[in-house]
Amino acid sequence: MRLLVINPNISESVTALIEAEARRSASPGTGITMQTAAFGVAYIETRFESLIGAYATAQLAAEHHAGHDAVIVAAFGDPGLAGLREALPVPVLGLTESALATACLLGHRFSIVAISQRIQAWYREVVEANGLIERLASIRALDKPLAIGNVQGEHEEALLALCERAVKEDGAEVIVLAGAPLAGLARALRGRLPVPVVDGVSSAVRHAETLCALQPGKATTGSFAPPPVKPNRGLPDAIARLLDRQARP
Amino acid sequence: MRLLVINPNISESVTALIEAEARRSASPGTGITMQTAAFGVAYIETRFESLIGAYATAQLAAEHHAGHDAVIVAAFGDPGLAGLREALPVPVLGLTESALATACLLGHRFSIVAISQRIQAWYREVVEANGLIERLASIRALDKPLAIGNVQGEHEEALLALCERAVKEDGAEVIVLAGAPLAGLARALRGRLPVPVVDGVSSAVRHAETLCALQPGKATTGSFAPPPVKPNRGLPDAIARLLDRQARP
Amino acid sequence: MRLLVINPNISESVTALIEAEARRSASPGTGITMQTAAFGVAYIETRFESLIGAYATAQLAAEHHAGHDAVIVAAFGDPGLAGLREALPVPVLGLTESALATACLLGHRFSIVAISQRIQAWYREVVEANGLIERLASIRALDKPLAIGNVQGEHEEALLALCERAVKEDGAEVIVLAGAPLAGLARALRGRLPVPVVDGVSSAVRHAETLCALQPGKATTGSFAPPPVKPNRGLPDAIARLLDRQARP
Amino acid sequence: MRLLVINPNISESVTALIEAEARRSASPGTGITMQTAAFGVAYIETRFESLIGAYATAQLAAEHHAGHDAVIVAAFGDPGLAGLREALPVPVLGLTESALATACLLGHRFSIVAISQRIQAWYREVVEANGLIERLASIRALDKPLAIGNVQGEHEEALLALCERAVKEDGAEVIVLAGAPLAGLARALRGRLPVPVVDGVSSAVRHAETLCALQPGKATTGSFAPPPVKPNRGLPDAIARLLDRQARP
Amino acid sequence: MRLLVINPNISESVTALIEAEARRSASPGTGITMQTAAFGVAYIETRFESLIGAYATAQLAAEHHAGHDAVIVAAFGDPGLAGLREALPVPVLGLTESALATACLLGHRFSIVAISQRIQAWYREVVEANGLIERLASIRALDKPLAIGNVQGEHEEALLALCERAVKEDGAEVIVLAGAPLAGLARALRGRLPVPVVDGVSSAVRHAETLCALQPGKATTGSFAPPPVKPNRGLPDAIARLLDRQARP
Amino acid sequence: MRLLVINPNISESVTALIEAEARRSASPGTGITMQTAAFGVAYIETRFESLIGAYATAQLAAEHHAGHDAVIVAAFGDPGLAGLREALPVPVLGLTESALATACLLGHRFSIVAISQRIQAWYREVVEANGLIERLASIRALDKPLAIGNVQGEHEEALLALCERAVKEDGAEVIVLAGAPLAGLARALRGRLPVPVVDGVSSAVRHAETLCALQPGKATTGSFAPPPVKPNRGLPDAIARLLDRQARP
Repeated sequence: MRLLVINPNISESVTALIEAEARRSASPGTGITMQTAAFGVAYIETRFESLIGAYATAQLAAEHHAGHDAVIVAAFGDPGLAGLREALPVPVLGLTESALATACLLGHRFSIVAISQRIQAWYREVVEANGLIERLASIRALDKPLAIGNVQGEHEEALLALCERAVKEDGAEVIVLAGAPLAGLARALRGRLPVPVVDGVSSAVRHAETLCALQPGKATTGSFAPPPVKPNRGLPDAIARLLDRQARP
Repeated sequence: MRLLVINPNISESVTALIEAEARRSASPGTGITMQTAAFGVAYIETRFESLIGAYATAQLAAEHHAGHDAVIVAAFGDPGLAGLREALPVPVLGLTESALATACLLGHRFSIVAISQRIQAWYREVVEANGLIERLASIRALDKPLAIGNVQGEHEEALLALCERAVKEDGAEVIVLAGAPLAGLARALRGRLPVPVVDGVSSAVRHAETLCALQPGKATTGSFAPPPVKPNRGLPDAIARLLDRQARP
Repeated sequence: MRLLVINPNISESVTALIEAEARRSASPGTGITMQTAAFGVAYIETRFESLIGAYATAQLAAEHHAGHDAVIVAAFGDPGLAGLREALPVPVLGLTESALATACLLGHRFSIVAISQRIQAWYREVVEANGLIERLASIRALDKPLAIGNVQGEHEEALLALCERAVKEDGAEVIVLAGAPLAGLARALRGRLPVPVVDGVSSAVRHAETLCALQPGKATTGSFAPPPVKPNRGLPDAIARLLDRQARP
Repeated sequence: MRLLVINPNISESVTALIEAEARRSASPGTGITMQTAAFGVAYIETRFESLIGAYATAQLAAEHHAGHDAVIVAAFGDPGLAGLREALPVPVLGLTESALATACLLGHRFSIVAISQRIQAWYREVVEANGLIERLASIRALDKPLAIGNVQGEHEEALLALCERAVKEDGAEVIVLAGAPLAGLARALRGRLPVPVVDGVSSAVRHAETLCALQPGKATTGSFAPPPVKPNRGLPDAIARLLDRQARP
Repeated sequence: MRLLVINPNISESVTALIEAEARRSASPGTGITMQTAAFGVAYIETRFESLIGAYATAQLAAEHHAGHDAVIVAAFGDPGLAGLREALPVPVLGLTESALATACLLGHRFSIVAISQRIQAWYREVVEANGLIERLASIRALDKPLAIGNVQGEHEEALLALCERAVKEDGAEVIVLAGAPLAGLARALRGRLPVPVVDGVSSAVRHAETLCALQPGKATTGSFAPPPVKPNRGLPDAIARLLDRQARP
Repeated sequence: MRLLVINPNISESVTALIEAEARRSASPGTGITMQTAAFGVAYIETRFESLIGAYATAQLAAEHHAGHDAVIVAAFGDPGLAGLREALPVPVLGLTESALATACLLGHRFSIVAISQRIQAWYREVVEANGLIERLASIRALDKPLAIGNVQGEHEEALLALCERAVKEDGAEVIVLAGAPLAGLARALRGRLPVPVVDGVSSAVRHAETLCALQPGKATTGSFAPPPVKPNRGLPDAIARLLDRQARP
């Protein structure tokens, strides 16, 4: 089994964090291909940056999905996820929906702990779009400027304190550590939190393996079938091939 | 007052429909600049096509917004709208949210009449994202293949029949005619429907004028402030300038 | 174009505030007719007072709507709005729904800043009835006794502080200044708030102009058609004429 | 114990139906005072008629509540209910909320069977305002013109058929027979329906007795306390006395 | 009329509290039969304990319901309620749904005051399952260890303080005192709270009397009809008889 | 890794179906222990039967969980799941929540296809309790009497037709085949449906493996911590030991 994991941000340091956690989480025999956005920003925390990341991800997915059994959009907030689910012939998963799926198997209400104040409104909208707002206990976030490649090292105690407040004050029954820069932190915090803690990357890797194993099938009709073939222009070759239903040359 | 109206699709024929209705709807003294997506598909009806349209729209908006008082994303479904609202210094409006705003001033529950079966699931998600799903009576759509530049001419009676069923069977108190290819149809159907009928283009033009007149201010903090300045790479110049907060050269 | 603006309260001083903001907001060529409730209370902050204001408004609307292109119910909370929308042959708008329509075009979640503690529960129910509770970040209100004709003068700084807390603590992306006694305050606060700020009177005036321009049509069937003709008794002449579908003598 | 039961419509024949069912339902020792609206329409089926009925009910309630232990607003749709609950010193109940309270004790999802097509949209909004829309399976209604004083006699079989369809097609676990003209029909249909059937008048009478017995207390603060004393003018004496907190002369 | 009141907990001291309040609340002529769970825990505050209490209650209900007109599940949280409503030929009521029904007749939003921190999440889910989460202002709870038979005596002032905070800080318009160990406290607090206060036991007793009086009928089809007859094994005789539709020997 | 899979029904033939699908779905190295309810009914389709199944499951789980890494409650509807999640030291999963988690990774809206009319209302409530009602497109069910051990064999075409209608008429983007008697059918229907199809047993087995691999931790505080130790009586030894936090003798 081979997974294509795409970092929608341009930060190679974050790609490395993602890759490390993906490899630690994967079952034996699961291969990981990493790709980093060719264009975009260092860290997506807004809807506009997500729009850019979605397109960068789409290009990489179109170009590289062949030979993979599933694709993971490896930024919390899942830029482009629903669109790619239509267009690609294999399962596509995002960090947020994967983490929420795990969280829902562990408790009724979850809190999200995030790395910037700005990112919270967007995350809330993504939870709403997933239809799970009733199960969201709270979102809490760091309020310090960040060195994106070393959030965990510098802010572990502050993140832990946010988790504890979410449990004590907001009634969180599960904690979701949000954002690719926190990839692997759940592993580090094991045993230090009074409720289960969930990570997006490891959730996505495992759920991707599950979807590949279950073989539920790809939609051929309805809203997740591939987009209808129609005139297009000006698109990168790989995207045009997807839309035109041409196999890769 | 000058409005920049962007067609996120590549169809010049649809741009012409939009422009005609925009000019008919605008107040005296309101200028209209039209732009058509440089890349993308002929007509957006899926989440993946919307993702592409969002990026194409973002490029045009970044490049051309200077000198305009507001920007209109002229595809139903509002590709890229929330992101552009963050990034641009002027109000940004979409056809869907504008039509829904009008509809909500005319009745409690509305139905959307659309031009393709496929488009319905995506529209429903957009209504959900607008927080208005409780006011959605139904979505009904044509089930015939379309010549996108001449939907109104060929399908007027079928569209009228869909409206009537929405009123009679679904309890619609207002009808929203959805999709830029239907721009102007509301005008043509005036007096033929038993409930108010709303059009996205004219709604957006008028609401844009209203926002310009009211001068509510641009967010400088919170989630609709411009994205934080941070490293980026590989972006079209105009988008990079927006992100870097540089005035246009 | 001529708008009938009805103050459902008996306070002439508030009528003057409303009129001033309505005239400042209206397009050239839009005439404003003001009416003040013939009976009722000085300021509506409860459901019972709203019930009274609704009936007072209905009488004035029935008596004076002829010769106007739209009617505005100029108290936040929109007393009698939905009923009048059925009964009158022209568009009817309220301050709350108009302000919310504007707010929804400017951000995803809004807070309402109001002038009395008591008023908050009722406002919340009005937002619920508009189907927008998911987009309500918070309601905050002054906690001091008020001289209703001079709220802005005496409490501007306190109101500004409430706005700032709504943005900072509640995640408000837009502020709605609620209540006719605050008419015009949004204009005065321009540039002093970090998010867009919306006013009910100016929103209603502009949206009324928009509905007149768009000519969406009046419902002739469904729940916003005029009430079925049936026996009635004891009603003011103007209301009886409306119910009996008689033109004004 | 003495209950004041107000018919917000002007139809004496409906008052008689209500009174008969109220007396059949009341416990021994419970006295019933009936009042019929002094002004208004023959049968409320729209928001505008409800606005009128609310004011007519408020006048009667203000004038006659003294000496009663609770007040019942005896039209489905509960015109003026929330306002009167603030203003009166005794419990106030409506037919809709009382029927829904009963229905919720008998099953999870209920359907409402009503006597006119037009009335359905308004009933739906009342269920929404009660926060119970998730438990509403459907609303079904007669589609024939009505002689309001003899709906039951002429339409019993049609009403029964609507109930059966609600159970079979909509999943109704309880049926609510809606509208004062149907008062007593539930009693007549006993044993002919496959699910429990609820009537508004008998529910309201019994719940009124319960509230009197439980003595939960009247709000003296919060949004159901009496409205703050403030200037008023032009009101019927009884309403003015309520607002001014004067005992009846 | 004869009511079977089942304490799903094993605490005889709580049974005594329930019985005392039930007798105080019942109408003249209403007889009360008390039963205490034969197995289970001293006080249910978790979903697991509720699962046990549900089965203990089902056994007692199956064994003892004959000769009673209604059955009351006398633990807040209503363990087993929906299942028993299917299986028994008479109305079945729970403390939570009964208290919520009363609260909904007294105000729009209610708070629940409970006796342990742990119990809050489960209560919240029960309110959700009742479809009333939009009307829940808050849940507040004691944070001290409890002697379950004497909560009221030791904690009356602390409970009163929680009620006051719910009104002042959370906007509660009605207070629900939750948990059988608080049975009767509402009576003791009468006149000391600024909003109506509701008790589960007295609400359930009165609503049971109402359902018996109204005779709405037992479902014979749909999801609250008795379970379909099918093979079973290993069940207590009384439950097996219920499932097999055998009259009691 | 070793999973304890409990059939809350007494049907050995269904246990065999579950076991076969569990073994087909499990990763190499995952062991499966099957247990069948010692008491209860042949097939759970009502809330009352679920109450019984929950207790039967709790006994088996308490008695047999030692030596297992996770427990699966193998009836759709998840009887007892939330309670067991509190009480057991290992992850506990149900068929419904597992199938919904899978479905949510494959599309936005899903339909459930079930094997009896009666079961639908209860399934709907379970989806509500999972907070996913907004994503439920429909529930459709067979309307024929069943031989529970051979539903698939006799009804495959009818089930397929229900799936197709859910896609075409209800907008289902994913199909969930519900009920342990359908275990394995998703596998048989592969390639015959136009949207992805999900099975509860295989989803639960795979998600159980995922939770074991991710090691998110067991709640030690909050509402999913083990119930507080308190007096109990009359319980099966294994349950008493769980509640008393005693290791197994």
